[in-house]
Amino acid sequence: MSSTFTPGRAHPFEQVSHWDIDTEVAIVGFGAAGSCAAIEARHADARVDIFEVAASAGGSAALSGGEVYVGGSGGTAVQRAAGFEDSTEAFARYLSLAGGPAADAERVAVYAQRGVEHYDWLQAQGVPFKGTYLPGKWMEPTTDDTLLWSGSESAWPFSAQATPAPRGHTVQFEGWGGGKRLMDTLCARAEALGATVHYNARALCLIVDAQQRIRGLVVRREGQPCFVRARRGVILCAGGFIANRTMVERYAPQALVCDQQVSAGNDDGSGIRMGISVGATTLNMHEFFATLPFFPPASLVKGIFVNARGQRFINEDAYHGRVAHYVLRQPDQRVWLLVDNAIFDRPVIQPDIQIAAVGDSWAEVEQELGLPTGTLVQTVDNFNRAAAEGQDPLFHKSAEWLRPLSEPPFAALSYCPGDIQAHAFTLGGLATRPSGEVLDADGQPITGLYAAGRTACGLPRWGEGYSSGLSLGDSTFFGRQAGRHAAGSSLDLQVAP
Amino acid sequence: MSSTFTPGRAHPFEQVSHWDIDTEVAIVGFGAAGSCAAIEARHADARVDIFEVAASAGGSAALSGGEVYVGGSGGTAVQRAAGFEDSTEAFARYLSLAGGPAADAERVAVYAQRGVEHYDWLQAQGVPFKGTYLPGKWMEPTTDDTLLWSGSESAWPFSAQATPAPRGHTVQFEGWGGGKRLMDTLCARAEALGATVHYNARALCLIVDAQQRIRGLVVRREGQPCFVRARRGVILCAGGFIANRTMVERYAPQALVCDQQVSAGNDDGSGIRMGISVGATTLNMHEFFATLPFFPPASLVKGIFVNARGQRFINEDAYHGRVAHYVLRQPDQRVWLLVDNAIFDRPVIQPDIQIAAVGDSWAEVEQELGLPTGTLVQTVDNFNRAAAEGQDPLFHKSAEWLRPLSEPPFAALSYCPGDIQAHAFTLGGLATRPSGEVLDADGQPITGLYAAGRTACGLPRWGEGYSSGLSLGDSTFFGRQAGRHAAGSSLDLQVAP
Repeated sequence: MSSTFTPGRAHPFEQVSHWDIDTEVAIVGFGAAGSCAAIEARHADARVDIFEVAASAGGSAALSGGEVYVGGSGGTAVQRAAGFEDSTEAFARYLSLAGGPAADAERVAVYAQRGVEHYDWLQAQGVPFKGTYLPGKWMEPTTDDTLLWSGSESAWPFSAQATPAPRGHTVQFEGWGGGKRLMDTLCARAEALGATVHYNARALCLIVDAQQRIRGLVVRREGQPCFVRARRGVILCAGGFIANRTMVERYAPQALVCDQQVSAGNDDGSGIRMGISVGATTLNMHEFFATLPFFPPASLVKGIFVNARGQRFINEDAYHGRVAHYVLRQPDQRVWLLVDNAIFDRPVIQPDIQIAAVGDSWAEVEQELGLPTGTLVQTVDNFNRAAAEGQDPLFHKSAEWLRPLSEPPFAALSYCPGDIQAHAFTLGGLATRPSGEVLDADGQPITGLYAAGRTACGLPRWGEGYSSGLSLGDSTFFGRQAGRHAAGSSLDLQVAP
Repeated sequence: MSSTFTPGRAHPFEQVSHWDIDTEVAIVGFGAAGSCAAIEARHADARVDIFEVAASAGGSAALSGGEVYVGGSGGTAVQRAAGFEDSTEAFARYLSLAGGPAADAERVAVYAQRGVEHYDWLQAQGVPFKGTYLPGKWMEPTTDDTLLWSGSESAWPFSAQATPAPRGHTVQFEGWGGGKRLMDTLCARAEALGATVHYNARALCLIVDAQQRIRGLVVRREGQPCFVRARRGVILCAGGFIANRTMVERYAPQALVCDQQVSAGNDDGSGIRMGISVGATTLNMHEFFATLPFFPPASLVKGIFVNARGQRFINEDAYHGRVAHYVLRQPDQRVWLLVDNAIFDRPVIQPDIQIAAVGDSWAEVEQELGLPTGTLVQTVDNFNRAAAEGQDPLFHKSAEWLRPLSEPPFAALSYCPGDIQAHAFTLGGLATRPSGEVLDADGQPITGLYAAGRTACGLPRWGEGYSSGLSLGDSTFFGRQAGRHAAGSSLDLQVAP
């Protein structure tokens, strides 16, 4: 028997001499996915034990804005009240585009069909939504309204391929940070339903039998290994790996340019590593959410980004995370946001932004930036000429955000490395079915193992396609599926006691 | 005991009732990596059994050009004879850049230090190199010369960061296809040294014990499972996964645009899946080599690529595979190569290329392509003005390939989907140490398991950084290390008989 336990190595079931805890569904992590898995498993009357490495509940979701991305089926009650009809087809189409080249068609279909039901379910658990609509372009609402445009729905190319609707549903909370209220509600609900929560309990490794079935896990409590038998299944809801620098370097090195982690600190990838240890395959490990909060104020969206060649490269009205990915991949990451006097402002989230150049003409700005003569000037001239007619033939920024940058003085705000504050979390994780069943390299489920939230590769799996609320929506919904599936599994009957 | 064996599920050692073959080093795949692993393991006097799924030797390497990318240590004999000094530092720097954001510093250092030794070793095994230098820009040489420029060494940004040298060392062979000669030589050598080769032998799964040590594998011969004990180790040299559409869709969907597989047909990912089944982690599974053979004739490199916005996006003198990745990622993949009358020609490899537009002025071409007025014209004007002075301030194409595109008529060759013939193979694979030891998710070696060639994530791991000869160089060199390490392992002593 090994004397140390690590996530990358499973412990043989046959070598377990005693069990400290005997449960039916063991859940690793008490965040968005874990709490919803626990609620559903308790609804199905399974014994549930949750192992949370932190001293308190909520995980990284508790630091979020508390937005849930849902729609379809004609619209949630809030969408309909605000006059938006949202078909399942349009919702599915958007989710599919948002999933990028490796979108999961099955997961998209299930979520699109049941988005409204999921919203109603969250309400039924006690999650408060005010039910009002907030128009405009926001990073997160500063009001306690519910519904907002939280992605690239009305921006090209999404708008051309999927009928737009606002789908960000935010927990009622004044200002940013509604995630705390969301998680307080869901975690309290799980405990009220009878789930047992173990805090300061670090999951060390899975326990696997010779048939590659997951039979439990080893956790560390008060410095001691504790053997947990899970008769129906283990659900890994331990978050992503943005807080594990070694893993980021290895799997998603391009995220290293982002110095701000979107994490409560325990996204150490241990859930993903435990899955890998028993033959699970991973997907999209290189992908990550990133953002550069270049607005609000929304007027800055009327500026244009250019690179060191003086070229534009994105419609600036796309979701800020999509814009960020394009900014971060430009040559040498030398990028500036060009603004004129009419829209000049500093981003609220980065009020100390560097102003790289100013001038009374764009030629002066071009020269001050050291760009080859004519490059930036031609780009701005082309943009201005078309914008005056409400057109953006090259990048299709919508007319609402188009106006010529023609009122001097002009300025270039720096989005070059060292000057930017980029925020990131990881999107790659274990391959799963919509049921949460974790898959091996042949696409077959590993008996007794489930994953949800950022431990799995879920709906949000492509940095360029992210929308606010996708991760919470995915985590809560697929956490539920994993909880139900594990609770109803017949693992108990399949294996000898 | 399971009645079927699949790569994604390892078979428990404890359930093996008899062994059909008892060997020391079992090698899966008799291509570039497998043959070199066998030679070194035989040099170390280990019993070696090779299991090759095909009816003959050589793997995908036998279909290659037979180029090996080596240098450093002041230069190989051929480099020095041709007047090129190639420092280990410059070689390592280039390899590091070529590895991209997830370059493996340890692997780069080992290979750069021992590149010349490896070239000499290949010669010592009987691999014929003529020893002569062929100047110019080639996809592959049509002569039987040895040394050529086979990557992006003299192209920006590589040339600005690593002193250039030609490092493609090609087996002596008239015309394309020297890989057959290379593999005939290496495979004959392995057999002459006493390795036993089993053809038509498909590896079904690994055999693992409760301590997660690899103890052998199950292969299918004549329709029957055959239990192979490997007392020192199993080396997975089974190629990549370009021939497995399900895996490409799952892990590297962007490669789907390439309809030509660079494979002898057995790159089905089974080696990678076997590794995953026992807890190995994978790296860069989304990465792939791709090429659009837009030259020869080399004069076409003097053309410029533009996208649907009329923008240039790459220095066209970069390695063709790097250019291909930039072409394939442009919006809607609408890309054209602009040429004038002086350089107009059709690529040798795609003589039926579509000509999307012709005109006596660039304005006519722009209009015929349906691009917004002025976009393409400004791009060509800017290019021409600088090219006339031997400059390319935006993309740094080297002066050798710069001339204004000013002799009418003008044409746009189509590199849009449907019109292109792109070739691909996968670069992602199992995480390994330079020794070939396969690593788990915590970065620790899995006892008794090795991988090399495209089953591993090796030196070539970033499509944008590929150079011809990198995959063969990596496969042969790290195949050798795996063979030596496995043969010298003490697994035999560690485990009970």
